[in-house]
Amino acid sequence: MAEKVGVAIVGLGGAVATTAVAGIEMIKAGSNGLSGLPLADRDIADMAAYRDLEFGGWDLADADLGTCATRHGVLTEADLQNGASALRDMRAWPAVGSKAHCANIDGNNRMADGHRAAIGQIQSDLDRFREDRGLDRMVVVNLASTEKTPDANESSLASLDAFEEGLDGDDTAISPAMLYAYAAIDAGVPYANFTPSVAADLAPLAEMARTRGVPVAGKDGKTGQTFLKTVIAPALRERSLHVDGWFSTNILGNSDGLALDDPKSLASKLGTKGSVLDDILGYKVEDHIIMIHYYRPRGDDKEAWDNIDMTGFLGQKMQLKLNFLCKDSILAAPLAIEIARCLDLAAQRGDGGVREELSLFFKLPQTADGGAPVHGFAQQQAMLDEWLGEPA
Amino acid sequence: MAEKVGVAIVGLGGAVATTAVAGIEMIKAGSNGLSGLPLADRDIADMAAYRDLEFGGWDLADADLGTCATRHGVLTEADLQNGASALRDMRAWPAVGSKAHCANIDGNNRMADGHRAAIGQIQSDLDRFREDRGLDRMVVVNLASTEKTPDANESSLASLDAFEEGLDGDDTAISPAMLYAYAAIDAGVPYANFTPSVAADLAPLAEMARTRGVPVAGKDGKTGQTFLKTVIAPALRERSLHVDGWFSTNILGNSDGLALDDPKSLASKLGTKGSVLDDILGYKVEDHIIMIHYYRPRGDDKEAWDNIDMTGFLGQKMQLKLNFLCKDSILAAPLAIEIARCLDLAAQRGDGGVREELSLFFKLPQTADGGAPVHGFAQQQAMLDEWLGEPA
Amino acid sequence: MAEKVGVAIVGLGGAVATTAVAGIEMIKAGSNGLSGLPLADRDIADMAAYRDLEFGGWDLADADLGTCATRHGVLTEADLQNGASALRDMRAWPAVGSKAHCANIDGNNRMADGHRAAIGQIQSDLDRFREDRGLDRMVVVNLASTEKTPDANESSLASLDAFEEGLDGDDTAISPAMLYAYAAIDAGVPYANFTPSVAADLAPLAEMARTRGVPVAGKDGKTGQTFLKTVIAPALRERSLHVDGWFSTNILGNSDGLALDDPKSLASKLGTKGSVLDDILGYKVEDHIIMIHYYRPRGDDKEAWDNIDMTGFLGQKMQLKLNFLCKDSILAAPLAIEIARCLDLAAQRGDGGVREELSLFFKLPQTADGGAPVHGFAQQQAMLDEWLGEPA
Amino acid sequence: MAEKVGVAIVGLGGAVATTAVAGIEMIKAGSNGLSGLPLADRDIADMAAYRDLEFGGWDLADADLGTCATRHGVLTEADLQNGASALRDMRAWPAVGSKAHCANIDGNNRMADGHRAAIGQIQSDLDRFREDRGLDRMVVVNLASTEKTPDANESSLASLDAFEEGLDGDDTAISPAMLYAYAAIDAGVPYANFTPSVAADLAPLAEMARTRGVPVAGKDGKTGQTFLKTVIAPALRERSLHVDGWFSTNILGNSDGLALDDPKSLASKLGTKGSVLDDILGYKVEDHIIMIHYYRPRGDDKEAWDNIDMTGFLGQKMQLKLNFLCKDSILAAPLAIEIARCLDLAAQRGDGGVREELSLFFKLPQTADGGAPVHGFAQQQAMLDEWLGEPA
Repeated sequence: MAEKVGVAIVGLGGAVATTAVAGIEMIKAGSNGLSGLPLADRDIADMAAYRDLEFGGWDLADADLGTCATRHGVLTEADLQNGASALRDMRAWPAVGSKAHCANIDGNNRMADGHRAAIGQIQSDLDRFREDRGLDRMVVVNLASTEKTPDANESSLASLDAFEEGLDGDDTAISPAMLYAYAAIDAGVPYANFTPSVAADLAPLAEMARTRGVPVAGKDGKTGQTFLKTVIAPALRERSLHVDGWFSTNILGNSDGLALDDPKSLASKLGTKGSVLDDILGYKVEDHIIMIHYYRPRGDDKEAWDNIDMTGFLGQKMQLKLNFLCKDSILAAPLAIEIARCLDLAAQRGDGGVREELSLFFKLPQTADGGAPVHGFAQQQAMLDEWLGEPA
Repeated sequence: MAEKVGVAIVGLGGAVATTAVAGIEMIKAGSNGLSGLPLADRDIADMAAYRDLEFGGWDLADADLGTCATRHGVLTEADLQNGASALRDMRAWPAVGSKAHCANIDGNNRMADGHRAAIGQIQSDLDRFREDRGLDRMVVVNLASTEKTPDANESSLASLDAFEEGLDGDDTAISPAMLYAYAAIDAGVPYANFTPSVAADLAPLAEMARTRGVPVAGKDGKTGQTFLKTVIAPALRERSLHVDGWFSTNILGNSDGLALDDPKSLASKLGTKGSVLDDILGYKVEDHIIMIHYYRPRGDDKEAWDNIDMTGFLGQKMQLKLNFLCKDSILAAPLAIEIARCLDLAAQRGDGGVREELSLFFKLPQTADGGAPVHGFAQQQAMLDEWLGEPA
Repeated sequence: MAEKVGVAIVGLGGAVATTAVAGIEMIKAGSNGLSGLPLADRDIADMAAYRDLEFGGWDLADADLGTCATRHGVLTEADLQNGASALRDMRAWPAVGSKAHCANIDGNNRMADGHRAAIGQIQSDLDRFREDRGLDRMVVVNLASTEKTPDANESSLASLDAFEEGLDGDDTAISPAMLYAYAAIDAGVPYANFTPSVAADLAPLAEMARTRGVPVAGKDGKTGQTFLKTVIAPALRERSLHVDGWFSTNILGNSDGLALDDPKSLASKLGTKGSVLDDILGYKVEDHIIMIHYYRPRGDDKEAWDNIDMTGFLGQKMQLKLNFLCKDSILAAPLAIEIARCLDLAAQRGDGGVREELSLFFKLPQTADGGAPVHGFAQQQAMLDEWLGEPA
Repeated sequence: MAEKVGVAIVGLGGAVATTAVAGIEMIKAGSNGLSGLPLADRDIADMAAYRDLEFGGWDLADADLGTCATRHGVLTEADLQNGASALRDMRAWPAVGSKAHCANIDGNNRMADGHRAAIGQIQSDLDRFREDRGLDRMVVVNLASTEKTPDANESSLASLDAFEEGLDGDDTAISPAMLYAYAAIDAGVPYANFTPSVAADLAPLAEMARTRGVPVAGKDGKTGQTFLKTVIAPALRERSLHVDGWFSTNILGNSDGLALDDPKSLASKLGTKGSVLDDILGYKVEDHIIMIHYYRPRGDDKEAWDNIDMTGFLGQKMQLKLNFLCKDSILAAPLAIEIARCLDLAAQRGDGGVREELSLFFKLPQTADGGAPVHGFAQQQAMLDEWLGEPA
């Protein structure tokens, strides 16, 4: 009999999470195809089938997932009445919340205060999840809203010892995302960070994952504009078309956009998007501008407009413009699913620590040694293909 | 002392050719950088330096190259007065011409009629070129306007014997492009086809190149819209975003555009552009539409607008639009230069026959066995990188 | 009690017609607002209220209107289940059909052959419509697919006498659109031509409308790209920005698009779109190119991409690009409704013959004297406002 | 003999000013046509001919105008060597400068400090200009960089008496733009404000202009994005297409863009752009977002990207996107010239005070009574046409 893999999501009521859960439930119900799932055509030994995934997780919102999904407006009424009707019976576990770390997001479904208490609660939630659902293995995936970037000089973030002390003292420098990451790694459960928040990429936690042999990966899912940037920029480099400027603007109207309306969360987001271009091209693009705007008419539909100015042969100027009318959660949810399947595969293979092979899925790929990541899409694809190996 | 490589261009007075010649003359004069030259940063043993290239070639237009360039409007007045002033003293050799094969292009600078006479003239032109300029090696590059597609059933095109007979009988099924290709291969000079015309990809000529060990490559330089298509389509496939339709339209106002205003030449052009997408994606995109329009306000500036409709997770629809404001000759000229350098390298290495490694530079890469080509840009890049080998 | 106005539509099962009928039924049911209805905010004496409109009409398709609407994909499932459920009970009357005049459209719901028989049938359909529904007045609106342009030299189209003879002889030069127009005018019922087909703009029919005092208006509803063209071009003229070229391309995937896939129907359509620009600007734009492509992924959604090249002060060049993601029937249906209301108003006011005041609604406004129409949007608006007069 | 009209420009060394001066000098030299000049085709009695305009003005930069123009990169080398060579011999008069009011702009060519001294200097500059050049009449046009918006509560700005006191006391609330406006009005010279700065629209100064019968007009030249907004929005209103959101972004790289990189100047600019849409549509568009970014690759070329979300019939959504690749100074300079000609005409006609008839040229038209301005382009055109009257 197939082994069941539990996916415990931080931010279970969010747009990406409910879309992911609905998509898998619909696959189980036979009412959803596999379009948009990058690894759907691969036949990799030991990789969990989509229908063997079971979902649970935490959220500050206490509504059932069906209600949450209706609010996000990603799933159609037909989806919710047919394949995705299971969402009506699902409800998130109480979550760690902190207005200090993510200003625009709040809710009542909170667990008790205190860092150590939170870690204990997260781990007992996981135990209960495993038991109740008869899971063989588990993965934790962070899909919560973006937290602000922590101060690099905070002493609690400097070493694992300091971090443990910070936990004891409820240091506010330690964010909810870090608590979930710590709890998962400590419990031996693989952890993926799909957000720009600092979590398992904090040096002490990355070190802990390596030592304990727990696979971790991140960060910030590469969905729309950055995805295209990492596809196109390598080709411009190969053609020696010099990029003089790259102006990227985004409009979106979902709660992710609202969270980014907080300047501190935005700064965190832009941080993960900005270095990509220079790293790929091998030189600094002074006029690389990235803007994200909360614009309600779009709801979860997201639109990116990019303008690229470049210089070619004989110093002559050219322009390339991209206009991507995409859907944030529709692009993100299948990536989150594939990351969960890959981390579970890594755990089975005994591949612990930072999994750079998953760089393809992230805007700012976490590297094992903290060095510069590979950003070019085709290169990332080659890395993943090599790790996945031959079809079973 | 550096060895000199002659580049004999079919269509020397054209926009791409004059831009290529001007660019290299300006490099020699120190007034042009290397932007836009894809292999500028590679250090490959035995590859000719840009400044060691010497240009000559054929054209129906008998004006000096400076006058031709002014007409095309690609080079600036400043270019023509400074680094590119050498063009004023260059003039094309009389060319083979045929209204029957390319309706909208004509001129007075013609060589004598007759297939065998033409071949003899082309080969004696090459001999004279070598001698006059003290060349160590040569390459022929076809940059002439697009010819109409020949009838596949023409008996003269079926085998090398039939082709030789056709030459003897001045069969009109044999086009100017084929005469140049035959003459070059017969003379042991590498031949590149930067146009969509049928030339060294005619089965008998490809066979002859293989037997004689002469490197050939083609066809149809991959500059603007198709370049982007082969960059983006592989990434959509990797993300399992199903392409429902791809609408591509182009506007350009140079003589290439005028030639394409002849429906038969256009059909030939579209033929080389159309199969790319299906080959990359692995399924047929029924609504793949490609249009090219002659639109004079742009001159040599070319604009492509692409709209891609795709289906993602949960069957939801998204759109990507590309708007490329590019310059035809500015993109094409450096590719033609790199192809010439690579074919010369192949000749030195003894790599004869069809050079698939150069697929990166072509819309419809010619394959050694006539089979399906590799179209994905990153895959093509890997092929070229492997063939080029380690930096010297 | 309010007076009821019957709107008899040629092409009742089409996308525009079913959208119009559904919208009014939903207004009656209280489930549709007035957005998109240009005259919703005006309070004009004697103008019929939206809820006083009653619909009937002819179509070659014999399915109920609900089934037709589902096929077009404009109305949502929710629309069809709620306010628009009345469509399920509506069915078109048998129509005049002719493969010769509109190649890609056919159906089984045909009336008997013969021109005089058809006219008799159309008029008795109108009588029955009036009686069955207790109508006070009626209007005929042509929303059928585009017919090919008739040969200007056909003798039957030269005068009213010749036309009458042509009717007697079943001359194939006389198209279905002309039969409907003749029948309506002859019955004293106002007639609007929302298509590019030749109908009441045929000189003998326009003359007949004037003599009989029957209001007529046309032709070709101004919805998307041409609407924007007539809004923007006058402003470019006022700023003395010289238009060097205007490239317009359209993609759409509904049955209107399929009809236009027939080159003869397309020529007819382009004819009504082409003269607009030159008339507004006062000079000939040599590079004015208009393309329409049948592209299925869009269904009834239509997309226009326009590129305008212009020259400003000091001869410097600029570009404006428009990308309109619109919905053909959603834009067209309310215009058809307003045209019907205005023609009914004209009839009440005794304003017979060609109603130029409705130019605002048409791509190629029919003029009373056959002279050049007013195309500029603001000028057209002023004409309509003046005719409508002060609010009641 | 033709009467000469002096145009004294605040910011004479700027991109718009040098372009305007060059254009007129080139017209005088016969090397420039009239494209881009809105009123070129009108024949209005008493309106000054283009060749009868003479230019002078103030600027903090002391370089000759040719050098300034080269720096801006709007004029071509050919322009500067031919028709516009006169700029080499022109140099701006010392200007009033204030880092406090416009942070990013500075220069050495300053007049002596002190408000009253500045006013005296400006007026004696005008006297000398008139005398030296044999002028019949003069106009002052403000083309300087945008100043920050003054605090509305500043007591010196409340009344003319308070303003006079503020002048005596060198109150820093009084900006350079106000000093030029005061000086011009006080000297009986018409004053136009082409910038978003507060100047003759300050209530006490508007009152003074009315009392003295001096024509004034403003403010903020309507060139690119707002021009299109006022062209398109009225048509959307007429079609009852409800605007749900309008997202406008701009990239430009000239010194105007640099000035706007100062948040306070930007706020001032956005203030004049923001109200346009709501005023035209008659309702508040909550999601109306306007962004301006300093992006150097473009230089004086400006690019605007607009996305409009709208709701049509049956509540269905549509989108319109505009992409305007324009040239800031090429659009602005001819407007500044026409404004000068119109104000001079107003002075001759005795039409003093705020000239609302010039609304067409401004983003935020100044009104005589301080009430809401007319923003719709066609309505503005009608106002101007009526005032200009019949051709001479």
